[in-house]
Amino acid sequence: MSENPSNALPSKPRSAASIQSWSGEYDVIVVGFGVAGGAAAIEARRAGASVLILEQQTRGGGATANSEGTIYFGGGTRVQKANGFEDSLQNMHDHVKAAAGPTADPEKVRLYCENSLGHFDFFLSCGIEFKDTYYEEKVIFPPTDDCLIYSGNEQAWPFVEEAKPVPRGHKPMKEGSAGTYLMESLIETFEKEGGEIRNEAKVKTLVRDDADGRVVGVIATIDGENLALRAKGGVILTTGGFVMNKEMLARFAPHLLRCKYPIGSDGCDGSGIRMGMGAGGNAINMHEGLMTTPYFPPNTHISGLLVDARGSRFVNEDCYHGRVTDAILTKADGQAFLIVDDALYDEEKQFVPYPMAAVEETLGELEASLGIPTGELVHTVEAYNAAAATTGEDPTFHKASKWVTPLDNPPYAALDLSVDNSIWAAFTLGGLDTKPTGEVLSVDGEVIPGLFAAGRASAGLTRSGRHYASGMSIGGGSFFGRMAGRTAAGAPPVGE
Amino acid sequence: MSENPSNALPSKPRSAASIQSWSGEYDVIVVGFGVAGGAAAIEARRAGASVLILEQQTRGGGATANSEGTIYFGGGTRVQKANGFEDSLQNMHDHVKAAAGPTADPEKVRLYCENSLGHFDFFLSCGIEFKDTYYEEKVIFPPTDDCLIYSGNEQAWPFVEEAKPVPRGHKPMKEGSAGTYLMESLIETFEKEGGEIRNEAKVKTLVRDDADGRVVGVIATIDGENLALRAKGGVILTTGGFVMNKEMLARFAPHLLRCKYPIGSDGCDGSGIRMGMGAGGNAINMHEGLMTTPYFPPNTHISGLLVDARGSRFVNEDCYHGRVTDAILTKADGQAFLIVDDALYDEEKQFVPYPMAAVEETLGELEASLGIPTGELVHTVEAYNAAAATTGEDPTFHKASKWVTPLDNPPYAALDLSVDNSIWAAFTLGGLDTKPTGEVLSVDGEVIPGLFAAGRASAGLTRSGRHYASGMSIGGGSFFGRMAGRTAAGAPPVGE
Repeated sequence: MSENPSNALPSKPRSAASIQSWSGEYDVIVVGFGVAGGAAAIEARRAGASVLILEQQTRGGGATANSEGTIYFGGGTRVQKANGFEDSLQNMHDHVKAAAGPTADPEKVRLYCENSLGHFDFFLSCGIEFKDTYYEEKVIFPPTDDCLIYSGNEQAWPFVEEAKPVPRGHKPMKEGSAGTYLMESLIETFEKEGGEIRNEAKVKTLVRDDADGRVVGVIATIDGENLALRAKGGVILTTGGFVMNKEMLARFAPHLLRCKYPIGSDGCDGSGIRMGMGAGGNAINMHEGLMTTPYFPPNTHISGLLVDARGSRFVNEDCYHGRVTDAILTKADGQAFLIVDDALYDEEKQFVPYPMAAVEETLGELEASLGIPTGELVHTVEAYNAAAATTGEDPTFHKASKWVTPLDNPPYAALDLSVDNSIWAAFTLGGLDTKPTGEVLSVDGEVIPGLFAAGRASAGLTRSGRHYASGMSIGGGSFFGRMAGRTAAGAPPVGE
Repeated sequence: MSENPSNALPSKPRSAASIQSWSGEYDVIVVGFGVAGGAAAIEARRAGASVLILEQQTRGGGATANSEGTIYFGGGTRVQKANGFEDSLQNMHDHVKAAAGPTADPEKVRLYCENSLGHFDFFLSCGIEFKDTYYEEKVIFPPTDDCLIYSGNEQAWPFVEEAKPVPRGHKPMKEGSAGTYLMESLIETFEKEGGEIRNEAKVKTLVRDDADGRVVGVIATIDGENLALRAKGGVILTTGGFVMNKEMLARFAPHLLRCKYPIGSDGCDGSGIRMGMGAGGNAINMHEGLMTTPYFPPNTHISGLLVDARGSRFVNEDCYHGRVTDAILTKADGQAFLIVDDALYDEEKQFVPYPMAAVEETLGELEASLGIPTGELVHTVEAYNAAAATTGEDPTFHKASKWVTPLDNPPYAALDLSVDNSIWAAFTLGGLDTKPTGEVLSVDGEVIPGLFAAGRASAGLTRSGRHYASGMSIGGGSFFGRMAGRTAAGAPPVGE
């Protein structure tokens, strides 16, 4: 991550006329072996294409391998049914539409939901197993090999008014993080089915035919050599987002620079977005990202109260952690405390440690220690407690009643969840504008022939951190990766 | 405003090779006669260029003529000094840097401030007069012919911590709205100095030399004929923003569609931005806009309390109206009430009428009528009143003490300032990426030869409605219009 403004600029393609000889020729070349690249490559291969994946790291995996591996499926999967959850495609669509955010592509949302059961089967076909179990505790991901969780805002107000709550986060059957298992399964599947992989192969340049603007290949640096590799059907950019590229963050999404921990892999350097832009692709939604500060587990923390520097609540604490974090930045100006009492605080079970801003015997002392205006925190907690004790409801922010209990076991503590003091992590949600087929669009809305993108290199299924659910990146990236793979291979889209 | 998605797409230029004969030839052609176009044209003319302005309406004026005409000057203008206000370029810079927003161009901010006194003189040189008076009441603009006002957030927390508060809004000497006077003065000046104007001349197409990509002219529809007009030094796009183009709003800034009243002129249709994009110009900051719901005058309303649907305050009421409106949308989710008592409410002096959501003898009855959770509005007002009565301060949002008085004169009323129920107006703050010289930049950061933009057709001085001050659009548009005019005419930049 050097500090060079040109790192935020498009990378220009090389003219095909300048290529003296090609070092290899394939139907489809996939750049980057995360979940989107793997899904694209496997589908293209299954459609009969010769497929090469170029991965800049020593082995495929990408951001997905570093993740817990949750995938967002619904509409009545085997796992949902086994655990007694009734979902429907319409119900799933109602939630995903909200979760994708206000700038989402309605066609991508529709296709993703309509093909969800088949998309689950795709993972099964790659040897990935899912246990028929539901993990009830509210977690970032199950520490066990259990599968199904509520991974987003399904149960949280106001989303609960849009669709019937059903869990849709499906973690592959592996204890704890399942991202590596997921990716190793895709690597094995692709190799077994005759795909070719080159690791430590860095692609910095597309090759374009000057006459018709078609992308016809790439220049890849392999073993110190720059090789020209031809792609007859298309090049698919699945290089991830740009959270590791400080210059791109500064140019496009400066607020994400405040989050000190990038979520992704070293490959999330924006190289594919820059190459796509250089070939005339339009980068959209570039100012959006997901931010998170994971204040649960323990579950008891959800029964705490999130307050701003004025002692007021600003969001229901049972939202998805990304939505809460967005609210801390936009509604609370980046400064927030989680107020817990002795019954709720659980240092042992903390997913990540937060600085303890203050511990006091009374709420009045606590607000004084925190610099909150006199009486404000006392009022917030007392009003909440009164409603909790009498009705068991949260009339102000509609936190689900299961989390609503009075805070009345001193001492009281304030965990500091502020952006500048705590663990805040982020990834980007902007990228190349694509059709649902993965074809990259120019700023004029025209297809750039031969060029495809999927995953976080594209503006995909989900466009807003405020609405996001875990599993939508891997879910959307793999689904539209499959669409791109099939289209580049000349096969009809998924589901047709 | 038809409903055609192509209205949001770039307009492609025509090839110069296809032009059989030019109907006219100028050094500089300016497209659009608002304040940016007028300033550009006058500077180009004064630099010795032959200059044509093409205006699509029956007469020049643009969004500026429909505005009150406030211009943001500082650093010790004649009017500031006459009224005893000590400003400095550094102090002005400290505020403008904050007011331009987090994505502003630091070089544009610096140049704007450093040349502010000279920019004031430019308006004087165009025959525009400013009265040496200060209008103390907090208003959108003085209803009199007085000049100087606090037109932004200078006196409001937290801006008050960044720079010493000084008023910098300068309204030309005209009772009430001075925008037409300002623009008529520019029209008269330009004509007197030998400039040529064609009204009812619609430009939909740039003309570009295919060989070097240089913009060399325009196609203008005049009296039903399409005329090719050549510009040897450059074409300057000063066509305004895109608030009148619903398709562009939907594509780039969908939240602004919630504001029912566009601020601008019929010409703010994004045509220049689309032409610039078609010639390879990069449109940036396109998701930003200024939104306003003008809840003052009367000044007494600033002493009221803005609360959200939960009865909590979320912003200091003495901010600039645009900042408050942004807070209503982003912090209060679009729903807010202004709570006033009988001493503060003044129907007669209301700048715009708001629906009265409820009037009650007690705060408890008022919160019940508004559907606010029991006790929350009562607490908010009582806590505010207690601090007002004892310290005269607002410990929660730091509203300036001059506005802080207890609300204790029943009946109490709630004015509905919600986005769906009230007068919300907006304009756009995104446009073509330009150098301070007005030269339009491509997505690669390269100058597009022969193409300039200024005013709201560009991403100019000010980039954020949350930070904005009145006078920065006319101020920035005219200043960087002048820069563009000089550069297109081959003269050195303003101030050099």
